[in-house]
Amino acid sequence: MTVTSFFNRQTPVKFEGEGSTDPLGFRFYDKDRMVMGKRMEDHLRFSAAYWHSFTWPGGDPFGGETFNRPWMHGADPLALARQKADVAFDMFELLDMPFFAFHDVDVAPEGASLKESIANLNAIVEIFEKKMETSKTKLLWGTANLFSNRRFMAGAATNPDPDVFAYACGQVKAAIDATKRLNGANYVCWGGREGYETLLNTNLKRELDQLGRFLSMLVDYKHKIGFNGPILIEPKPKEPTKHQYDYDVATVYGFLERYDLLQDVKVNIEQNHAILAGHSFDHEVRLAYALGIFGSIDINRGDDLLGWDTDQFAMNVGELTLLMHEILKHGGFTTGGMNFDAKIRRQSIDPDDLLIAHVASMDAAARGLLAAEKMLADKALEGPVAARYAGWDEAEGKAVLAGERSLEQVAERALGLNPQPRSGRQEYLEGVLNRYV
Amino acid sequence: MTVTSFFNRQTPVKFEGEGSTDPLGFRFYDKDRMVMGKRMEDHLRFSAAYWHSFTWPGGDPFGGETFNRPWMHGADPLALARQKADVAFDMFELLDMPFFAFHDVDVAPEGASLKESIANLNAIVEIFEKKMETSKTKLLWGTANLFSNRRFMAGAATNPDPDVFAYACGQVKAAIDATKRLNGANYVCWGGREGYETLLNTNLKRELDQLGRFLSMLVDYKHKIGFNGPILIEPKPKEPTKHQYDYDVATVYGFLERYDLLQDVKVNIEQNHAILAGHSFDHEVRLAYALGIFGSIDINRGDDLLGWDTDQFAMNVGELTLLMHEILKHGGFTTGGMNFDAKIRRQSIDPDDLLIAHVASMDAAARGLLAAEKMLADKALEGPVAARYAGWDEAEGKAVLAGERSLEQVAERALGLNPQPRSGRQEYLEGVLNRYV
Amino acid sequence: MTVTSFFNRQTPVKFEGEGSTDPLGFRFYDKDRMVMGKRMEDHLRFSAAYWHSFTWPGGDPFGGETFNRPWMHGADPLALARQKADVAFDMFELLDMPFFAFHDVDVAPEGASLKESIANLNAIVEIFEKKMETSKTKLLWGTANLFSNRRFMAGAATNPDPDVFAYACGQVKAAIDATKRLNGANYVCWGGREGYETLLNTNLKRELDQLGRFLSMLVDYKHKIGFNGPILIEPKPKEPTKHQYDYDVATVYGFLERYDLLQDVKVNIEQNHAILAGHSFDHEVRLAYALGIFGSIDINRGDDLLGWDTDQFAMNVGELTLLMHEILKHGGFTTGGMNFDAKIRRQSIDPDDLLIAHVASMDAAARGLLAAEKMLADKALEGPVAARYAGWDEAEGKAVLAGERSLEQVAERALGLNPQPRSGRQEYLEGVLNRYV
Amino acid sequence: MTVTSFFNRQTPVKFEGEGSTDPLGFRFYDKDRMVMGKRMEDHLRFSAAYWHSFTWPGGDPFGGETFNRPWMHGADPLALARQKADVAFDMFELLDMPFFAFHDVDVAPEGASLKESIANLNAIVEIFEKKMETSKTKLLWGTANLFSNRRFMAGAATNPDPDVFAYACGQVKAAIDATKRLNGANYVCWGGREGYETLLNTNLKRELDQLGRFLSMLVDYKHKIGFNGPILIEPKPKEPTKHQYDYDVATVYGFLERYDLLQDVKVNIEQNHAILAGHSFDHEVRLAYALGIFGSIDINRGDDLLGWDTDQFAMNVGELTLLMHEILKHGGFTTGGMNFDAKIRRQSIDPDDLLIAHVASMDAAARGLLAAEKMLADKALEGPVAARYAGWDEAEGKAVLAGERSLEQVAERALGLNPQPRSGRQEYLEGVLNRYV
Ligand SMILES: [Co+2]
Ligand SMILES: [Co+2]
Ligand SMILES: [Co+2]
Ligand SMILES: [Co+2]
Ligand SMILES: [Co+2]
Ligand SMILES: [Co+2]
Ligand SMILES: [Co+2]
Ligand SMILES: [Co+2]
Repeated sequence: MTVTSFFNRQTPVKFEGEGSTDPLGFRFYDKDRMVMGKRMEDHLRFSAAYWHSFTWPGGDPFGGETFNRPWMHGADPLALARQKADVAFDMFELLDMPFFAFHDVDVAPEGASLKESIANLNAIVEIFEKKMETSKTKLLWGTANLFSNRRFMAGAATNPDPDVFAYACGQVKAAIDATKRLNGANYVCWGGREGYETLLNTNLKRELDQLGRFLSMLVDYKHKIGFNGPILIEPKPKEPTKHQYDYDVATVYGFLERYDLLQDVKVNIEQNHAILAGHSFDHEVRLAYALGIFGSIDINRGDDLLGWDTDQFAMNVGELTLLMHEILKHGGFTTGGMNFDAKIRRQSIDPDDLLIAHVASMDAAARGLLAAEKMLADKALEGPVAARYAGWDEAEGKAVLAGERSLEQVAERALGLNPQPRSGRQEYLEGVLNRYV
Repeated sequence: MTVTSFFNRQTPVKFEGEGSTDPLGFRFYDKDRMVMGKRMEDHLRFSAAYWHSFTWPGGDPFGGETFNRPWMHGADPLALARQKADVAFDMFELLDMPFFAFHDVDVAPEGASLKESIANLNAIVEIFEKKMETSKTKLLWGTANLFSNRRFMAGAATNPDPDVFAYACGQVKAAIDATKRLNGANYVCWGGREGYETLLNTNLKRELDQLGRFLSMLVDYKHKIGFNGPILIEPKPKEPTKHQYDYDVATVYGFLERYDLLQDVKVNIEQNHAILAGHSFDHEVRLAYALGIFGSIDINRGDDLLGWDTDQFAMNVGELTLLMHEILKHGGFTTGGMNFDAKIRRQSIDPDDLLIAHVASMDAAARGLLAAEKMLADKALEGPVAARYAGWDEAEGKAVLAGERSLEQVAERALGLNPQPRSGRQEYLEGVLNRYV
Repeated sequence: MTVTSFFNRQTPVKFEGEGSTDPLGFRFYDKDRMVMGKRMEDHLRFSAAYWHSFTWPGGDPFGGETFNRPWMHGADPLALARQKADVAFDMFELLDMPFFAFHDVDVAPEGASLKESIANLNAIVEIFEKKMETSKTKLLWGTANLFSNRRFMAGAATNPDPDVFAYACGQVKAAIDATKRLNGANYVCWGGREGYETLLNTNLKRELDQLGRFLSMLVDYKHKIGFNGPILIEPKPKEPTKHQYDYDVATVYGFLERYDLLQDVKVNIEQNHAILAGHSFDHEVRLAYALGIFGSIDINRGDDLLGWDTDQFAMNVGELTLLMHEILKHGGFTTGGMNFDAKIRRQSIDPDDLLIAHVASMDAAARGLLAAEKMLADKALEGPVAARYAGWDEAEGKAVLAGERSLEQVAERALGLNPQPRSGRQEYLEGVLNRYV
Repeated sequence: MTVTSFFNRQTPVKFEGEGSTDPLGFRFYDKDRMVMGKRMEDHLRFSAAYWHSFTWPGGDPFGGETFNRPWMHGADPLALARQKADVAFDMFELLDMPFFAFHDVDVAPEGASLKESIANLNAIVEIFEKKMETSKTKLLWGTANLFSNRRFMAGAATNPDPDVFAYACGQVKAAIDATKRLNGANYVCWGGREGYETLLNTNLKRELDQLGRFLSMLVDYKHKIGFNGPILIEPKPKEPTKHQYDYDVATVYGFLERYDLLQDVKVNIEQNHAILAGHSFDHEVRLAYALGIFGSIDINRGDDLLGWDTDQFAMNVGELTLLMHEILKHGGFTTGGMNFDAKIRRQSIDPDDLLIAHVASMDAAARGLLAAEKMLADKALEGPVAARYAGWDEAEGKAVLAGERSLEQVAERALGLNPQPRSGRQEYLEGVLNRYV
C-alpha cells in the first residue's frame, strides 16, 4: 500500500478488542465476526461520504475555511480533483471502508457549461473506475448536487424557471450514468432546494407537480438504462430552505403514493434530519419499514439543543442499538448501507481527526449491532411487545382487522364491555435496554 | 331574550365600527357586509367550542381550577349539564354565533357504563335539539372524546386491547348519531391518544392498521346512515402523547391514500397544531388545498416560544389575512368553518373575559377577511406569483409537465442552456402584505 | 418490617450484581462500595420525591387520573394523608432510600384557611417525625407549593396583590419550620408561577423587586431560626407560565447578585429544566460550580423532542457519567443530593412500576458514578483539557489574567504574533467517553 | 448627488404618505414629524449594517454566492474596498440613513499580518472620514470581527491559546480607535466564538475569567482614550457555537456584575437572538431596562419556526409597536439606535431589493412608533397595568418592599387573609393592542 503524505499512517486500522485505548484501533468492529449468520461488515455496510470528508473546507455561517487541505488550493481544478481522489481512496483503505458515496460536484469541478461539467465528472469517474479495480471499496450511491450553484437558489425540479428544471435533468442524467458505470447500489435524491423561503412568492401545488414529474422521468430513465438499484429520496424538513417538500418519511410516502412512485423509490434516512422534523431516528426507520419504503441510512447525529443540521459523527450507542435492532428485525440491509453523512467539527483540523472520527463511530455502531443481536436473541423487547398486543391475535381482533365487522356490530358488542387499562411498563423496558447498552 | 345570570349582559354584541373602543362591540365583524358576493357571516362561519368555554375549569399541569363555574360543582351531573347548556346557548346568543361544536363528554356526564353514557348524551342532545329550534346557532361538527378517560390511556383505535377499540366504536357511533340528529355539517376525529409514549412498547405498523380499519368502519357507517358531511381528521404532532399518527396534513394525506379514505375524509386544521409540527398555519392550509383534503379550521394560536398547545384566541391579523386569502382563493368554505378551539387564559376568570376574547378574535378574523378581499382584487400576491412561474405556461414547460418529455430529451436540451436566477422579491412582497394589514 | 398491602413485596431491593436480570435488583448500586474514599450511598445521596410518587394521580392536559391510588379517594383528607405517609415510608424502605423531599401540600390537605392548612401540615410532620426515628430515610429538603392553588395563579411573591405575597410568606414560614423540625438538609424554592403569561399586563421590574424582597425575608428568617442548610432556587424557564424569572442558572446568578443573596442561596438543578432552557444538564451543573452556587440536583430527564417538562426517570448513563464526573471533580455533594423529581409514565399503573423506575434510574446513576471515578483516575478528560489551556499557565498568560497587562501592551505584543489554531479533538474525546460508558 | 451605477436610482427615497404603493416611497417614515417632542428620525435613529448589505455574498451552508456584487471580484482588495465604500455611501444617501455600523473586516481586507490589517483598516477609515464630512450619515457603532478568521475558531478572548487573546486585543484596539476617530456613538462586542462546541474539551470557568479580563481591559482603554460612548455586548445564545457565554440579557447582566463592568457596559439587543434564546424581543428589551443595561437595538427578525439566525428585515408592526412603546416609556434612545442587522434573502439579487427591504422595514418601525405614541397618550396598557398592581402602592405593600417587614410579621398578618384572584385580562389587552396596530 502506498498512501499519499496526507495521513500520518500507512496501515489500515485493525480490530484490537474492547480493551484497546488506541483511537485508531477498533474495539468492537470486528468485520469478520458473524452476527445472525452474516459477517459484521456485511451487516453494517459502512460508507464514507466524499463531500464532508474531502470537499468541505470547515466553514460555517460566521467563519471561513479552517482545514486548509492541500487539494483545495491550486490553479488546476482537475489536478486538484485527482489529488483529492488519491487522498479519498487512501482514507478508504486506511479505514478498510467497504463503500463510499459522492455528489457530482464533490468529485469534479463544475465547468463553464453543463457539457464541460459532465466532461469533468466523467474524467474523474474514469479514475475512480481504475482505482476500484484494486480497491475493495464499492459505490453505495451517487447523487447530483442541485443546490449549491446559484442557478438552483429557487429550487431545481421545483424552480419557477423550466430551464433550471432542464439543467437539473442534465445533471441528474450524468450522475446516474456515472453511478451505473461504477456499479453503484443506489441512486439518491436530496431535495435541499426543493422547498420555499416564503409562501408569498410560491405556488406550492405547482411545485409539487414539478417534483413529481422530475422523479417520474428519473424512474423511467433508470429502467431504460437498466440501473438496478432503487432511487432513494432523503427527507429533510428545512435547511437550507425554510421548508422542504421531502419533510420526513411520512410526507415522502404520501408524495410517492400521489405520483405513483412507490414501486421504484424508497428513502434514505438521516438521524439529523429526523430530529429536525421532530422525530426520533428510530421513529423514522420504523415508519419507513412499516410503509415499505426503507432504503438506506445516512448515519450521523444532530445536537438535540440546536436547530440546524450539525451532521456530527454518531456516537450514541443506545440510539444505534435501536437502529440495528430494527434493521436486524427486518433481515438487514438489501441495497442500503450506513453512509457517514457526518463531518468532523471545524476545529478538528488534524488529518488524524478524520480517521479517529470514523473509527469511533464505526465502533459505536458495531457495539449497537452486537447489543441488538443479543436483544433479539433474548426477545428482550419483542417478547413484551407481542404480549401487549396479544388480544389482537385472537379471533374477534382478527375479524375486526380483516374488515369482517361493521361499526354497529362492534359498537353493539362494546355495550357489555368495561375494558381495564394495563401498565405500559415504559420504565421497565428502559431498564431492559440499559442492560444491553 | 332571557339569559341566565352568568353573563352581566342581556343583549348581543353588535357591530359598532372601527372607531369603537368597546371590548364588547365589533369593529370589523359586520355580519351582513358583502365580501366577494357573500355575507361576511357566511364567509367566516364562526363556531364556539363547548369544551374550552364550558368544560375546562382553568387547570394546567401545575395548578387546579381557577374558573369556579357554577355548573361545575354540584351533586347531580345531569342537572349541571343542563345548566351548562343554558349558559352555552346564552353565550351563542350574546355573540350572535352561527355555529358551535362539541365532544360527547363535554355536554353530558359519563355514566357507569357505555350504555349510561350514551343515554346521558342523548338526554342533552334532546335539549340541544329544542334550543336549536329557536336559536340561529347550528352545529358545525360533533366528535367523541376518546382520550380523557383512563381506558384510552394507550389509545382508542390504536389500543393494544381490542376491547378498547370496541368501546371507542361504541362512543363514536353514538357521537355521529347525535351529530346527524342535530344536522351537524361535519364529523371530526382528533386522535389525541392515537400515538405512542415510547416505541419500546409499541408495534407501530399494527397500530396504523388498526387506525385505518377504525376510520374505514366509520366511513362505512356514515354512508349507511346517510350522514352527508365529511369526516375530518384533525392533525396534531404530539401532546398528549410523545408522537401522534396524525402528525400533520402531509402525514394524514399519506395515511388516507394508504387506507383508501381520500374520498370521504378531509382535514380540520388548527394553527397551534401546525406550529407544533414545525409548519406555518398558511403552509398547512395551502397543502391541504393542494392535496384536495381541505375541510375546516380550528381557529386559535399557539405561542411561538412554547412547545405545547396553548390554544390561545387568534389575534394576529397578518396570519388571519393569509388564511382568508387562501380560503377565498379557493371559493370559501363549503361544509367547514372557523371553530374557536381556543381557551381564555386561566387567569381570565371574569365571565366577560369569555365574551371579550371571542369578540376580539372574531374582529381580527373579519379584518383579515377584508384585507384578503382587497389583496385579491388588486392581485397583490397572485400577480407576482403568476409572473414568476410564467415559463411553465409556455409550450415546452407544459409538455414537460404533461409527461411528454423524457429525461434524455430534457437533458439534451439543457446542454445549450445557461439559466440565470431571478430575484425572489421576498422583502418586496412582505412590504406589500404590510400595505393591507 | 411491616409494609402496607400496596406493594407486592416485603423486602428491600438488594444489590445483585451486573449479571442480574431482576428489575427489582440493583446491578450497579452497591451502597457500601467505596468510590474515591466514600461509600456509594454517601456519594449519590438519592432522594424520593413525595409529589410525583404519591400525590400525582396520572393526569395530563388531555386526560384524567390513571393511577387510582387508594389514598386518593376517601372522605377524610387527614386519614388519607396518613395512609399516603405509610405507603411512602414503605417505598423508602423497599428502595433503601437515604432521603426524601416534599412540598407542604403533598403531605397534608389544604384547609379552609391558612391556619388550618398549617395545622394539617404539622399533624403530618409529627407523623413523619415518629417514622423517621426508626427509618434510615432523612429529609433532603422541604418546600412550599406556591403554584397549585388558584390564589397563586398570577404568582406568589410576584403577585400583583400584596395579600397573596403575604399568604405565600405564611406558607413558606410554616414549610421551613417543618423542614427544620425534620432536620432537612436544604430548603428549596421553585418559582413555578413567578413569571408571566403576557407582558401586556406585567410590570416586570416591580415583580423582580418583589421576588428579591421575598427571598431576602426568607434568608433573614432562616438565620433567625438557625436553619443551617442553604436556600436553593430551582431554575426553570417556562411552564406553567410563559416565562419564569428563575430561567436558568445564569439568570439566577444575576438575580442573586442583584439582591445580595449570593451568600445564602444556591441552585437546585433539574435536567428537564436545563434542556427546556436550551442548555445541556452538564452545562448547568458546570456553570453553577463555576459561579459558586451549586447546591443540589433534581435527577430526571426530559424528552429532547418535546417542549414541556416530562420529568421522566433518568436512564441515560452517558449523561449521568458527565454529571457525576463534574460532581466528583468538585469533591462531591455537601448538603445536596439527587432527588428523583421524576414521575412514572401515566400508563405505568402497577405499584411495581414505581419501584422498578427508581431501581433502574438508581442503577444508571451508580453506573455513571463508577464510570466517572475511572475517568478521573485516568485523567481521561482532565488531561487533554489541561493540555489545551497550558499556555495560560505560563508567565504572560498569568500576567494577563492577573490584570497586569493593559490592552495597549497586549495589542503591541500581538503585532508580532501569528497564532496557529490547534485541533479541538472533539471526536477523539467523544470516543474516549464511549470507552467508559 | 452622484451615485455609482450600482443602484438604478439617483434620488433619495421620500415620504409619500400612507396611500403610496411605491415600494421605494415611505408610507409612515416622515422624518421631521414630531413624536412626543422629538423628530421621528431622532427617535428611530436607523442605522445601515455594512456587513449584510455589502460584504455578504448570498451564501448559506448549502450554497455559494448569489449576489455577484462587482466589488466582490477583482485583483486589488483595497480598490474593491474603496468601490464598496462608494456603493455603501450611495445607499446611505438614497435611504437618507442617519447612521451606519461596521466591523473592521467588513470595510477593509485582512492583510498578511495584524499590522497590515490595521493599516488597511485605517486606509478605509480615512476615506470614511472624508465622506462623512459631507454625508449626513454618522457612525452608530464600530466593532471588530473576532470570529471569521480560522485563528478564532476556538474563541477570541476565550481561546485556549493566550496568543489568540492577544491578537484579539490588537484587533479590538484598532477597531475602537477607528470608532473614536469617526465619532462613533457606541462600541459593540459580539462574542460569536466566545462559547464552546463541546464541554468535553472546555474549561468553562477559565474561559469566563478570560472574557471578564478582556472586557475590563477594553473598558480601561476606552476611558484612557476618552471614548465617550458605552461598550455594548450583543447577547446571542448559540450559532456559530453550540453555546455562547453572552446567552441573553439576564446572563450578560450576571456576567457584568461578576466582573464589575456594570458601569461601562450595556447591551445591544437583537430580535433574532432573543427568540433563539427562548425570549420575546419585548422581554429582552424590558429586562435590559429593568436591569439598567439597555443600550441599543439590532433591528431584524428571525423565523419562529427555524432554529438559526435568519436575520430577516423586521416587518412585524405589532412587535415593533411593543418595542417602541418600551423605548418611548423610558425616554427614547440615548446613544443607541436601530441598526439593521438584517440581510435580504439570498434570492433577492436585484440592487433594488436592498433598497426596498430597508424602506419596508423603516416604514414598519415608523408605524410602530406612531402606534406606540398613541398607546402611551391613551395609557392603553399603562393604565390597566398600574391598576393591577395598585395594592403595592398602599402603605403595607410599600413597607414590605422597603424591607420594613420580617417574614414572621407578614406571615402573621396572612393568617387573617383569604386573597381572591382577579382576572389577568389578557384577551382584553390583546384586543386593545389590535386597536392600535
Ligand atoms: Co444526509
Ligand atoms: Co444532515
Ligand atoms: Co383543535
Ligand atoms: Co390545540
Ligand atoms: Co424539579
Ligand atoms: Co421538571
Ligand atoms: Co446582531
Ligand atoms: Co442575528
